[in-house]
Amino acid sequence: MGMDQPKAKVPYTLNSKKVADATMEWLHKRGVTLGEIAELVMLLQQKYYPNLTMEECIHNVEQVLSKREVQNAVLTGIQLDILAEQGLLIPELQDMIANDEGLYGVDEILAFSIVNVYGSIGFTNYGYVDKLKPGVLERLNDKSLGPCNTFLDDIVGAIAASASSRIAHRKQAEREKEQGEETIDSDR
Amino acid sequence: MGMDQPKAKVPYTLNSKKVADATMEWLHKRGVTLGEIAELVMLLQQKYYPNLTMEECIHNVEQVLSKREVQNAVLTGIQLDILAEQGLLIPELQDMIANDEGLYGVDEILAFSIVNVYGSIGFTNYGYVDKLKPGVLERLNDKSLGPCNTFLDDIVGAIAASASSRIAHRKQAEREKEQGEETIDSDR
Amino acid sequence: MGMDQPKAKVPYTLNSKKVADATMEWLHKRGVTLGEIAELVMLLQQKYYPNLTMEECIHNVEQVLSKREVQNAVLTGIQLDILAEQGLLIPELQDMIANDEGLYGVDEILAFSIVNVYGSIGFTNYGYVDKLKPGVLERLNDKSLGPCNTFLDDIVGAIAASASSRIAHRKQAEREKEQGEETIDSDR
Amino acid sequence: MGMDQPKAKVPYTLNSKKVADATMEWLHKRGVTLGEIAELVMLLQQKYYPNLTMEECIHNVEQVLSKREVQNAVLTGIQLDILAEQGLLIPELQDMIANDEGLYGVDEILAFSIVNVYGSIGFTNYGYVDKLKPGVLERLNDKSLGPCNTFLDDIVGAIAASASSRIAHRKQAEREKEQGEETIDSDR
Repeated sequence: MGMDQPKAKVPYTLNSKKVADATMEWLHKRGVTLGEIAELVMLLQQKYYPNLTMEECIHNVEQVLSKREVQNAVLTGIQLDILAEQGLLIPELQDMIANDEGLYGVDEILAFSIVNVYGSIGFTNYGYVDKLKPGVLERLNDKSLGPCNTFLDDIVGAIAASASSRIAHRKQAEREKEQGEETIDSDR
Repeated sequence: MGMDQPKAKVPYTLNSKKVADATMEWLHKRGVTLGEIAELVMLLQQKYYPNLTMEECIHNVEQVLSKREVQNAVLTGIQLDILAEQGLLIPELQDMIANDEGLYGVDEILAFSIVNVYGSIGFTNYGYVDKLKPGVLERLNDKSLGPCNTFLDDIVGAIAASASSRIAHRKQAEREKEQGEETIDSDR
Repeated sequence: MGMDQPKAKVPYTLNSKKVADATMEWLHKRGVTLGEIAELVMLLQQKYYPNLTMEECIHNVEQVLSKREVQNAVLTGIQLDILAEQGLLIPELQDMIANDEGLYGVDEILAFSIVNVYGSIGFTNYGYVDKLKPGVLERLNDKSLGPCNTFLDDIVGAIAASASSRIAHRKQAEREKEQGEETIDSDR
Repeated sequence: MGMDQPKAKVPYTLNSKKVADATMEWLHKRGVTLGEIAELVMLLQQKYYPNLTMEECIHNVEQVLSKREVQNAVLTGIQLDILAEQGLLIPELQDMIANDEGLYGVDEILAFSIVNVYGSIGFTNYGYVDKLKPGVLERLNDKSLGPCNTFLDDIVGAIAASASSRIAHRKQAEREKEQGEETIDSDR
């Protein structure tokens, strides 16, 4: 509640651009590039769309990251990872997050709020990459490397799954447009 | 699996326009107008946005209904209501749906897949209208009137909650645009 | 609303045993054995618990199936599969379910209501088996075999994922009990 | 990852009792009593069960709080509230949580992981109390009082909704038992 803020503070209003920028900045600070997330998308989708390009994958990752719910989940998850690294959490929570306790499922819950943005069809892709930990997820999940990425590895997998769902929706729209059908759901 | 379809059938491809049209048609056949759903939206949102018009509410309901996940849930829910009316379900399921059994929660689950399309901020509005049953929801929930609307009343409440969330997101974007800030999340 | 039922019908009250029995009966009628689901559980969990037995896996599958939410989802999903086989659905819904349309996600939504019963830690296991389709899931997913299992394959994967989560919770409780710690959450 | 912990530390193992105790302790520290949550349950359920006692409501709240997913959500939410009070969060996240930004929905997401423990039938009750803010929720939501309860008010509403669902499930089991029917789902 801004206890430490100066008396004459400007009334709060949400600044969407700042939140969006902070999301990109913190992914970068935690060592995750959009290219690495796009590689997960390519891994998930190339067998369905052989002509899919890395440019398209990166574009779809960027679109997922432009969503407010995704930004909220990314910032909240990275925040908890950082505080666990710094040892600043309530001891019982500290232990569970710092040790990526299997029975602590809040990381999966935040991941799901990301996947949900493009609907339930992304659930399967999320579970798959979260289990196999390909590419960037292997590094994020390596406990010997120092940083605590209990939330971030699930979040990155969820962004990739969500971008995959977006591609599936878009490819359908493209196919129908080519066939002269009216486009629906341009609002997504 | 198309057992009853002619041998030389055209291979299946999803036709989004047909699914969208069927969604509107079936809401109409079940006696629900977009205006009635828009009235629920107005009820939920007018205290936050005093200048909100019915036209805006209707527009937002239409946009929610253009989403694929919403169409899937609407058609599936109405289908189960109709089959319960016709007495065509597995007896145990028939009893639970025809009697709107409180411990049967699949109607709420479908409703939530609708609310989720615009994020978790819609959960509260959904629960509120689902409990108070204002306007069209009172009629849909009246068991003395004949039709089985076990799914439809939750679905209509969810569409109204989802349209309310969409308005909240859009109003923020408008406010920021007026202040000369860059617009984010144009993709929604 | 029981239009076709005799006038002097007994007032409806939920009979939990009948619903539970119908769930088991319909899984059996659709050709799925508890042993096959238990094999999926073993596949998912044996690397974490090398001493895990098939008896334990079957027991945990049975416990998952004793949950009301699970029974609701199983019966509703099988019902939609059967009606799709019989060609009795609204045409647009018929096409999507009979062809297991990738952009129709209500099957995943029902599956998730099953996984959720033991918490978010089951999301990953669900996605993994749903993608790889091991054992019984390969057969259920084989479109050449006749029956429509659009819902059932996701449901079976979800039951296995949920049983895996239950095992993870229980094994923790056992470990703590052996160490003389008080048992918590006996209510699960 | 315990960077600051002594070298010879004991290997981590989850201690369920400590997590359960910390959950109760932190609710108490944040000024919420089980009696206040039980009053919300009574408000939600007394019209369905006129003989419902406060003792039963408290017992059901305690049982909800014995669930691991609930404990995880309570501790994580309270943690974020505390850090927002202390001004220790990433600035953009700090602003959203400290000001209970309407478009920040992670508090609702954590609340839903609590409601989900007893199934989708609790969604409606959660939304209802979260909108009306009766009893303890009015105090928790009063921004003039100092503490930041952005997460806690949603969490308390969710615990009450979840306890209400548990009561609905249990009352059905009791009713069937009285009628000499076999009890199902004793595992809940």
